[in-house]
Amino acid sequence: MRVVILGSAAGGGLPQWNCRCPICTLARSEPDRVQPRTQSSIAVSADGSDWLLINASPDIRQQLFENRTMHPRERLRHSPIRAVLLTNGDVDHVAGLLTLREGQPYTLYSTRGILDSVNANRVFDVMAEGVVAREAIGMDAPFEPLPGLSVTLFPVPGKVPLWLEDETMEIGAETETTVGALIEAGGRRLAYIPGCARVTDGLRARIAGVDALLFDGTVLHDDDMIRAGVGTKTGWRMGHVPMRGENGSIDALAATEIGRRIFVHINNTNPVLIEGSPERGDVEAAGWTVAHDGLSLSL
Amino acid sequence: MRVVILGSAAGGGLPQWNCRCPICTLARSEPDRVQPRTQSSIAVSADGSDWLLINASPDIRQQLFENRTMHPRERLRHSPIRAVLLTNGDVDHVAGLLTLREGQPYTLYSTRGILDSVNANRVFDVMAEGVVAREAIGMDAPFEPLPGLSVTLFPVPGKVPLWLEDETMEIGAETETTVGALIEAGGRRLAYIPGCARVTDGLRARIAGVDALLFDGTVLHDDDMIRAGVGTKTGWRMGHVPMRGENGSIDALAATEIGRRIFVHINNTNPVLIEGSPERGDVEAAGWTVAHDGLSLSL
Repeated sequence: MRVVILGSAAGGGLPQWNCRCPICTLARSEPDRVQPRTQSSIAVSADGSDWLLINASPDIRQQLFENRTMHPRERLRHSPIRAVLLTNGDVDHVAGLLTLREGQPYTLYSTRGILDSVNANRVFDVMAEGVVAREAIGMDAPFEPLPGLSVTLFPVPGKVPLWLEDETMEIGAETETTVGALIEAGGRRLAYIPGCARVTDGLRARIAGVDALLFDGTVLHDDDMIRAGVGTKTGWRMGHVPMRGENGSIDALAATEIGRRIFVHINNTNPVLIEGSPERGDVEAAGWTVAHDGLSLSL
Repeated sequence: MRVVILGSAAGGGLPQWNCRCPICTLARSEPDRVQPRTQSSIAVSADGSDWLLINASPDIRQQLFENRTMHPRERLRHSPIRAVLLTNGDVDHVAGLLTLREGQPYTLYSTRGILDSVNANRVFDVMAEGVVAREAIGMDAPFEPLPGLSVTLFPVPGKVPLWLEDETMEIGAETETTVGALIEAGGRRLAYIPGCARVTDGLRARIAGVDALLFDGTVLHDDDMIRAGVGTKTGWRMGHVPMRGENGSIDALAATEIGRRIFVHINNTNPVLIEGSPERGDVEAAGWTVAHDGLSLSL
């Protein structure tokens, strides 16, 4: 199995368009200290030729341009991306669908609930009927978006997208609005969970023994945004478990058997983004890699 | 008045994600021969400090990152972009609204019809109520989105966006679905018309005497897409007048008094994109500039 992390940042990317926090400022002025990162997306392939895109970020055009593997190879119109999967309906995961148009056929997979949210917005009709199929996938039901690649979706603690929030919203519920994906090819297993509000026993049991885990690295501490002075929301309020602190993912997953542990979906306020920072050193010492754009794995 | 062309390509950009036409291939392999271009957007300022963004392309995050003038300058959160205007509802002009979130206040201006199209899609609620105001502007009614900058919208021959097309669609009608903008500051005048199906007497009269015209350069000939083998649609069918051929814009505007003539919104199939090509030479000899990303004007 081959995996390419097309975008390793959370919503807004790094730098975020309107942010002057120290980390965004470094990303503009000293890319050796803070490498700029695009928004959350990976591509997975069983054969290195046809790829499943998981999550379509607003930066998808730039991501496909900068990764040669993703360039069209045949005829006048072509894409190595043959299927697309959404793990939630957040803008950083669905806005890129507006770019994946131009008459290019593929199948869009997600849960019924996430697809319904997308379908309710007519702007996504640029993925034309008869060209892009939209297929709902149930929980715990393995399917093959591409030959030799098996995917199983499962609910993880999360919340509805920001643009669907209302007073009835519940944080941390395990519903079809936020899912993880277990991906298998050639006997190797990858778990991809870019959004997760809490590490549960059920989650640990599901991912035990995977060859690699790509996990929600939005915040280091629950109050990252508040510490940075850029907002009032906690990680929990945004549906993201912190790396460290009470119930932090690093400790919560420490005893689980996992091949490579990699943080993705990293928010611009997370100090692990600074090369050589104590916080980066801490998570690396705990056995985790902080993803950067273009990081690829062969499992 | 200062003007920055943030993105000079039409929808899909250059290269387009799934296109292997000779021009897209050159944009990937020989950027000296075909310079890559992002999708259609400009920024205009009266004072060089606060900017009006006209059209929000899917590439907006990359565009704001690559243009230092557009970086935040004050406090922790800030943007020089203080107002946004849409000239139609095409995906290449509205998708970027999904990036202009993160609690940043500005006013979004457009016609009632275009705003209604946007508002009907709940995904755009990421521009939060109470943070981003949405203001409908009538035709031929000058308004000041920023102090010292006056804008007048006027209808141009066009069509509804692709994602709103149905059997009742009319091409070439002058309605509020496709508009041009006349922008004045300090006694200088700019006309911005990135989409236009036909040059009419009325259009010529409106723009006569402007210091600069940024005009629809989607196709060179009406059948560019067919010649390139990538599609069956004519320029007319897409709502875009060709540069050359019957009713071509170069001839149709030749006798109109215009300071600088610049083509924007250039489709990846248009051979004027090739540096040194006979087609580029032809339009330049006719007094036109083919825009590239980052081209800026001081009027």
